[in-house]
Amino acid sequence: MYGAIEAGGTKFICLVGESPQNIIEEIRIPTTSPSETISQITQFFQKHNQATSLNGIGIGCFGPLNLRESSPDFGKLISTPKLAWEGVNLRKELLKHFNCSISIDTDVNAAAIGEYKWGAGQGLQNIVYLTVGTGIGGGAIVNGRPLRGLMHPEMGHMFIPRSPDDAFEGNCPFHQACLEGLASGSAINRRIQGEGVSISDKDSFWELETQYLALGIVNIICILSPERIILGGGVFEKRDFLFPMIRKKVQVLLNSYIQMKEIVEDINQYIVSPALGSQSGILGALALAYG
Amino acid sequence: MYGAIEAGGTKFICLVGESPQNIIEEIRIPTTSPSETISQITQFFQKHNQATSLNGIGIGCFGPLNLRESSPDFGKLISTPKLAWEGVNLRKELLKHFNCSISIDTDVNAAAIGEYKWGAGQGLQNIVYLTVGTGIGGGAIVNGRPLRGLMHPEMGHMFIPRSPDDAFEGNCPFHQACLEGLASGSAINRRIQGEGVSISDKDSFWELETQYLALGIVNIICILSPERIILGGGVFEKRDFLFPMIRKKVQVLLNSYIQMKEIVEDINQYIVSPALGSQSGILGALALAYG
Repeated sequence: MYGAIEAGGTKFICLVGESPQNIIEEIRIPTTSPSETISQITQFFQKHNQATSLNGIGIGCFGPLNLRESSPDFGKLISTPKLAWEGVNLRKELLKHFNCSISIDTDVNAAAIGEYKWGAGQGLQNIVYLTVGTGIGGGAIVNGRPLRGLMHPEMGHMFIPRSPDDAFEGNCPFHQACLEGLASGSAINRRIQGEGVSISDKDSFWELETQYLALGIVNIICILSPERIILGGGVFEKRDFLFPMIRKKVQVLLNSYIQMKEIVEDINQYIVSPALGSQSGILGALALAYG
Repeated sequence: MYGAIEAGGTKFICLVGESPQNIIEEIRIPTTSPSETISQITQFFQKHNQATSLNGIGIGCFGPLNLRESSPDFGKLISTPKLAWEGVNLRKELLKHFNCSISIDTDVNAAAIGEYKWGAGQGLQNIVYLTVGTGIGGGAIVNGRPLRGLMHPEMGHMFIPRSPDDAFEGNCPFHQACLEGLASGSAINRRIQGEGVSISDKDSFWELETQYLALGIVNIICILSPERIILGGGVFEKRDFLFPMIRKKVQVLLNSYIQMKEIVEDINQYIVSPALGSQSGILGALALAYG
């Protein structure tokens, strides 16, 4: 039996199970203060740990995170807009209560791991999971292993060319008009001074939005060369029409330079939705728990 | 004894040796027609193979290349501006003459491998080698292994924001104003309608050039999260002053978002010259020959 946590800015999902087919219990805990939230998580896992002892716990966590296993601060949240959580080390807190191995990675790396193991990345060795929600983030599997490197990718903060007729200045507090500042859910809300969910599917805004996302995807292809790109996050919910728009723009931007069948012919299988739907992250955390 | 080849657009470097400290012979062959050049390479290695049989040959080759080991076309040059070489499979040609394992990777992955094994990447597991010469290309080591993925990275072709006061339209035949189209050696020549080597170190042009390169490096950091970035290629030759300019602009662009000591404090050791100088590629090919 294993424990899994998907730690997000608004809620924590906690799960106990053996595999995606054998899940004992899954709960949602609102993200409040670190002490309150961590205490609720601990209670949930302690209850199960008394029944059957947990062999491991995996955590997919919002970031930025310290992911250097050799560092004394391994697992610690670095700077985050959720100020109360800055400096919190979820892994260390849980190690006080549970005598099993506890693995941690970013939420997006966890989603990439979930899709790699049980979803749209099965059989491949190099995939990217890109989420476009409140923010934009990317996780990656390279040669079958999660990509961390110096810290971990921060794909939302790459710079892309702004469309010449776009007057919106961008809303990233660090970089203003980076990809996240131009095209995330929060950027959309700021741009229209309202709620992005209200934008009609026919609105020409989606031409601009998919152009920015396609530029981001092209940069990911040029730098990371993934075998498949999985797009998740709130902006795509009930908006399947965005996929053909993005795929076409990626092809136009690349202009047949990368002559791989996967991109030139089979792009419908190259840029895809998560096969695990909204479960990529929590199931990836379960895979992380296996160690 | 091993053989190594650095295959470039103007010349091939061929080497026979055991290690960087024990090199038997190194020659340069001009890149002419495939049949002529390959015949000269073959003669060079045959001569040595008769003395001591070669245990392996490593090739770092210009691209794009097919690097799928499972493909019947593994090692084949895909589209290349050097049209006579399109479709040539250097590895397969050499296998007709030599009964040893022959490894191949891109020229920039070979350079990354060389620096990883014997140069500025020693002790690290995630590095990028970026060359800014006639074109712009990047190779990478991730978790200690070369990054290939779907094909291999084509870092020069990422898109970056153009400076608002820059009227140059870019010279990439595929993407016009991608990084390579704006900032490569050939883009510089086109921009000034002359030879980039003549540009004075004091020229304000270098502010623009280093801004574009810094944007490319920031995108590499956001997407690939390397532990070190090694900058090589003709544009940096006798131009050490570009390094502090690039480092400063990378810090300004990232704006302390990635709070890692390596970038915020120790950027002089984060963005560096190749420790192997102009030998990164050919020594990386030698490392490839070890298999």
